[in-house]
Amino acid sequence: MSGGGEFNFIRQRLRPLTRGHPAALDLMDDAAILTPRPGESLVLASDMLIETVHFLSSDAPEVMAARAFGANLSDLAAMGAEPAGYLMAISWPKSWSDAQRDGFVAGLNAAAGDIPLIGGDTTSADAPLSVSITMLGFVPEGAGLTRSAAQAGHDVWVSGTIGDAGLGLDIARGKLDKQEHLLSRYQYPAARTELGQALRGLASACIDISDGMVADAGHIASASGVAIELEAAMIPLSTPVLHWLEGEGDEGLKRLVSSGDDYELLFTAPHDQAAKVLALSGRHGCEISWVGRVAEGEGVSVIAAEGDAMSFQSGGFTHF
Amino acid sequence: MSGGGEFNFIRQRLRPLTRGHPAALDLMDDAAILTPRPGESLVLASDMLIETVHFLSSDAPEVMAARAFGANLSDLAAMGAEPAGYLMAISWPKSWSDAQRDGFVAGLNAAAGDIPLIGGDTTSADAPLSVSITMLGFVPEGAGLTRSAAQAGHDVWVSGTIGDAGLGLDIARGKLDKQEHLLSRYQYPAARTELGQALRGLASACIDISDGMVADAGHIASASGVAIELEAAMIPLSTPVLHWLEGEGDEGLKRLVSSGDDYELLFTAPHDQAAKVLALSGRHGCEISWVGRVAEGEGVSVIAAEGDAMSFQSGGFTHF
Repeated sequence: MSGGGEFNFIRQRLRPLTRGHPAALDLMDDAAILTPRPGESLVLASDMLIETVHFLSSDAPEVMAARAFGANLSDLAAMGAEPAGYLMAISWPKSWSDAQRDGFVAGLNAAAGDIPLIGGDTTSADAPLSVSITMLGFVPEGAGLTRSAAQAGHDVWVSGTIGDAGLGLDIARGKLDKQEHLLSRYQYPAARTELGQALRGLASACIDISDGMVADAGHIASASGVAIELEAAMIPLSTPVLHWLEGEGDEGLKRLVSSGDDYELLFTAPHDQAAKVLALSGRHGCEISWVGRVAEGEGVSVIAAEGDAMSFQSGGFTHF
Repeated sequence: MSGGGEFNFIRQRLRPLTRGHPAALDLMDDAAILTPRPGESLVLASDMLIETVHFLSSDAPEVMAARAFGANLSDLAAMGAEPAGYLMAISWPKSWSDAQRDGFVAGLNAAAGDIPLIGGDTTSADAPLSVSITMLGFVPEGAGLTRSAAQAGHDVWVSGTIGDAGLGLDIARGKLDKQEHLLSRYQYPAARTELGQALRGLASACIDISDGMVADAGHIASASGVAIELEAAMIPLSTPVLHWLEGEGDEGLKRLVSSGDDYELLFTAPHDQAAKVLALSGRHGCEISWVGRVAEGEGVSVIAAEGDAMSFQSGGFTHF
């Protein structure tokens, strides 16, 4: 950590977030030192979130922190890693008050739970808030989940429910009436870290839904060199989303499977592992739903309830 | 890595920067997987650099990349770590052309040498360039250099020459006539990674000079609970800086020891190690100069050539 005027802030506000972890060196140095246990690999994910792009300027600082942390932690969950700590590099807007900075730190503190801050950097600029969190986790060597081992014939599964955060964003923007569940799915994303770890040795490919269910399934399809077919009727939806969908029809469903930020895990597994996958359902704070299958080919298709196939190509729709 | 429109850029422009390192997973996943060798710890440094604060908007994209990379690599050098790879999270200004982005990547490619890019994130925003590099390195367990073990009686040493980059910044701003050596010290900082590794087991505390020689010596003094006395006459200066100093006198020297971005290493070592330290001089592409001593007390003082003591307190000057 560096930056003249920032030292008191680091000592008083950020040091408690280290939870006393030795890797942090009390935030007195410019780097952290972390020692993995023997036989373990380190998983590292680094995201960049910018006000106006990833946050609304009307989001409370606590919400910005929760969203930044959740997005990064979710990347780790998708690799099946056990969280070990994080570095945060942040540029505060010069216009922010002390109370806003404190709000951000409070949000980070709440989101991190017992995961220690071990290093980073703070600065300030005449620019929108810009925050990069590097999240670190451990996996047994060779056991990290990736996107590239899905095979034709495997099942496709998803945790939790889809589309809540997208509608939550609409609520935050004042475009939709407030519903607490949906808004909180947008504001306080919960990464599926326990489920991710439980999927080691079980899932063949895994990704977290940050860009949207179809786009993220497409990342697995592309990395694994396969096609993914999703069954629209099997996509798990929460009660408030089902209510919203009643007035929207087919276009509404397209909207849900294209909206990001749910931070659920979408994963593939060999068909003979289905019983084991189902046995995990409900155990880690979320249901797990079968949503489709892996096939030969490329791209993602969504088979509508009526039997039509909707094809989604790099973010755009082709209905045929 | 994520972000819809960024995938081609990642595949075509960024993937070559991985040098094929397996930890990068070809940049197909949201996280990297790195396995330290047995008995080694991982050193991690994460900086945030923002256009207008850490770069001039007139700096070429290649220069911004070289400065961002150098600053982070230097943090690693100060811990005595061997570079292992880096993650880059970057937000491009929407106003940037493809040529500007390519220029940034070319600068990064040149600065990184054989150090692999293993992950990160790209996005773009109506905001100044914002880049956070998380640099990773290895040290033998327990051998990482920190700032907190300087003791009264130890010598203080510095690598290379001081103040070049500060005057280079003046040149970049058009305030000083161009001198290639000074400008390039500002534009293309060279981290002392080999020297840092050679100082393991030799230096008692080490820091890289990013905030300025006095301020950074102050960080060691503060972390170690000691005072540091520097001898003005012993501070190593390059020929162009010496020429500049002729017209500036005492205030010029204060300016040099307060200017940042030299990325030299300032370190302390027990007096009985002086011969070993001197034996390193010239070996790692830089001279090493004795510049002072560690004493009981706190803060940093600079003993002027005439015998006066200049005291520097948290960035400000007190002459007494």
